[in-house]
Amino acid sequence: MKKSISNDLIDLQGYICLELEKLDGLGHFKQDDWIREEGGGGRTNTILNGKIIEKGGVAFSEVYGNVTPEMKNQLGIDGSSFFATGLSIVLHPKSPHIPIIHMNIRFFEFDNKNYWFGGGIDLTPHYVIPYNAAIFHNDLKNICDTYSLEFYQKFKSWADDYFFNAHRCETRGIGGIFFDHLSHKSTLLPKETLFEFCMELGKAFPKIYKKQVELGKNIEISEINRTWQQLRRGRYVEFNLVHDRGTKFGLISGGRTESILLSMPPTANWVYGYQAFENSAEQETLDWLRKDVDWLSFMNN
Amino acid sequence: MKKSISNDLIDLQGYICLELEKLDGLGHFKQDDWIREEGGGGRTNTILNGKIIEKGGVAFSEVYGNVTPEMKNQLGIDGSSFFATGLSIVLHPKSPHIPIIHMNIRFFEFDNKNYWFGGGIDLTPHYVIPYNAAIFHNDLKNICDTYSLEFYQKFKSWADDYFFNAHRCETRGIGGIFFDHLSHKSTLLPKETLFEFCMELGKAFPKIYKKQVELGKNIEISEINRTWQQLRRGRYVEFNLVHDRGTKFGLISGGRTESILLSMPPTANWVYGYQAFENSAEQETLDWLRKDVDWLSFMNN
Repeated sequence: MKKSISNDLIDLQGYICLELEKLDGLGHFKQDDWIREEGGGGRTNTILNGKIIEKGGVAFSEVYGNVTPEMKNQLGIDGSSFFATGLSIVLHPKSPHIPIIHMNIRFFEFDNKNYWFGGGIDLTPHYVIPYNAAIFHNDLKNICDTYSLEFYQKFKSWADDYFFNAHRCETRGIGGIFFDHLSHKSTLLPKETLFEFCMELGKAFPKIYKKQVELGKNIEISEINRTWQQLRRGRYVEFNLVHDRGTKFGLISGGRTESILLSMPPTANWVYGYQAFENSAEQETLDWLRKDVDWLSFMNN
Repeated sequence: MKKSISNDLIDLQGYICLELEKLDGLGHFKQDDWIREEGGGGRTNTILNGKIIEKGGVAFSEVYGNVTPEMKNQLGIDGSSFFATGLSIVLHPKSPHIPIIHMNIRFFEFDNKNYWFGGGIDLTPHYVIPYNAAIFHNDLKNICDTYSLEFYQKFKSWADDYFFNAHRCETRGIGGIFFDHLSHKSTLLPKETLFEFCMELGKAFPKIYKKQVELGKNIEISEINRTWQQLRRGRYVEFNLVHDRGTKFGLISGGRTESILLSMPPTANWVYGYQAFENSAEQETLDWLRKDVDWLSFMNN
């Protein structure tokens, strides 16, 4: 089955890139295939200077080999050889009124037949608007509910905890869903159903993002909006390099640096002691960047 | 003695800021005093949009309190309360032909009377020019040699190892000197002499940087120079957030985030799979970013 998961993910990559090109209307993905010396390889598709997307990556990989001590440590596994395949997306839009979005689907399998799925979708608006956040969370909840009525709440909290920029005491954005170690053992759902869930998320991704693009793309952009976007991109860099376990593990364990750091924004700024004005949209956004907000409650606002 | 070390460091901060203002000719430092709830505080001086310096910080701190488990872990100490004072500098120049510079002096003391000094100065040119690197290393060697003929070589290698951006397989810049855990026990030099060494480095800092500024400030800046500078700033961010032990420790242990991240450049860019042109100045720089280069050997070139 692992080969068919890989194949479905690479097809999904193609589908998503096509849909994102349609959504963008200008940019095109450039394909970069690479081989991993120790086994496997990947296809990293990047888009640059589109009409909507300033810099984005949709990266597929399939790697296998011996379990290293770092993997044992970080992943807590006891197999001796592994197979891992995944699809990762990060899109940095041009407009500060369109959110940054991230998606990941990953599958691990070991020679002792243990396996798990992980992944999720989360949103990082430069400006948090509760109604838009509700739309996003509602889209995710609808998919989750088809598979288990427990998924959404559990995975939503997991995202709140995972995407937390602890040294700033703020969440990266408005979260979304994050899950890991999903298997028959942990969910009582068959492997095929769990993969279906991941694939459904992947297929829904372009539609989910399209809604967020539509909500923001016609909003006028001021100078302060642009400054703020650069600062928020700086926070995105901080989260990914300081806290994100996937990024840290990848970089330390000798993963492919260019593909891992595909998530970096095209540009980012840092200002010492930046203070948002009282009651400004920037301050409002900061006030929203916390865990456990029930975004769905803003659906009718 | 610890209080007099603090006092000397805060005087040194004042002296360095004054000298840097003279060197810059336009920018002025803004003083930001802060208090640490658990004990101590600091003075963070920042300069923005000068003629030479685009963004820079000269930060003094004096903190004390109980030794936390994180400190025990990271610093390998067995005292129960600590005193730490230090001065940190990072300057990001406007011109890509002037290097980024970093300096640090730090002093730790514990209730069991154990103490140590640490610190160093290192240089991160956007474009590596061996002769300029030789001037810099020669300045450092001259100071080191006054105190011990072993210092320069030992501390130079230490800097090569410390300022290594492992996931990029390149050094951050051309290194300099880095030292830690200097005490009477480890060096056979009296505590006063070790502090004198640190202070002499600090006093020499503005002169050392002035030479590097003079070497680069009249070189014309092309569009590719500017692009390259932004990418090198991106690497500086990567080193500081992924590898720098001081930054990581500070952020994880609840240090003052704004002061720790003073080292961030004003702006930075990331490009997927950037390739420097063959035989270009950019490629030449990449070729120099390795450990164990004997920069002093370029003194007469």
